[in-house]
Amino acid sequence: MRHVIGVLVENEFGALSRISGLFSGRGFNVESLTVAETDDPEISRMTIVTLGDNQIIEQITKQLNKLINVIKVIDFTETDHVIRGLMLVKVSVEGSKRLEVLKLIEVFRARVIDMAAKSAIIEITGNYEKLKAFLDVLAPYGIKEVNGTGVVAMNREVKARTRNIYKTRVA
Amino acid sequence: MRHVIGVLVENEFGALSRISGLFSGRGFNVESLTVAETDDPEISRMTIVTLGDNQIIEQITKQLNKLINVIKVIDFTETDHVIRGLMLVKVSVEGSKRLEVLKLIEVFRARVIDMAAKSAIIEITGNYEKLKAFLDVLAPYGIKEVNGTGVVAMNREVKARTRNIYKTRVA
Repeated sequence: MRHVIGVLVENEFGALSRISGLFSGRGFNVESLTVAETDDPEISRMTIVTLGDNQIIEQITKQLNKLINVIKVIDFTETDHVIRGLMLVKVSVEGSKRLEVLKLIEVFRARVIDMAAKSAIIEITGNYEKLKAFLDVLAPYGIKEVNGTGVVAMNREVKARTRNIYKTRVA
Repeated sequence: MRHVIGVLVENEFGALSRISGLFSGRGFNVESLTVAETDDPEISRMTIVTLGDNQIIEQITKQLNKLINVIKVIDFTETDHVIRGLMLVKVSVEGSKRLEVLKLIEVFRARVIDMAAKSAIIEITGNYEKLKAFLDVLAPYGIKEVNGTGVVAMNREVKARTRNIYKTRVA
């Protein structure tokens, strides 16, 4: 099962290296990994997507918590959360394919960020399933390049049970 | 100066750890880092954003090229490219603030992906400047959480000089 793990980590030299070393040394799978600054310049936030059963995920979070410089580890899978990643896709738009590709982009609520004679660069955001579906649908038109950020996650607001019915989930 | 460096790397255990070790060991700054799978399961793509003058960037690319498992290193700063990152922002929307926040989201072409009683989760994509501007504008309303993916980049299509005038850059 796919797990999204968030790690708050002190910006010490070597913290990222120790964390990635933990995954590689123990043979834990890493599907995607992002590291970005937070509003506190001393602290970075990592988001790691990994595949594994509950036992492996437990091992990973335990090992992460033991590492120096690690402030907090969150397994988003245990909470009510949203997941989003961004993908840039360069796709062929030559000749009669162009109109079809542009309509598909509308359907997926993606955006064209660069249009040239032979190809377009498209920006799309979503969870894995949406990004994967977009690539599957575009494949017959000729995908020239794909570059994804990996995903980040965020917990939804915690609400009292009785208020859940009023909650609007837009996407 | 900010540089966006792309690295194609073989999916060997330890490749990520060696690359992050290179940055930490030599004291190179890492503003953001993403690692994601490519369509080739043997190869991952890293995008590293780093600050430094041309001499430091040259050192970084040289050292990266020397690493085992590194297939290709691209400094996007030298090419005509697009840059995009994704950010999730949880912002307070209590009382009279809600309408103002929703209008600002429209202005920035951001999207609400979760709306609850007290807060909303917003998804926004763009380059650093746009993402930074969005946070600055939202700050007075009460930002509860920010989680960004870091950025990825992609070269625009290479065109003959005479054809450049026909090129449409949508964003």
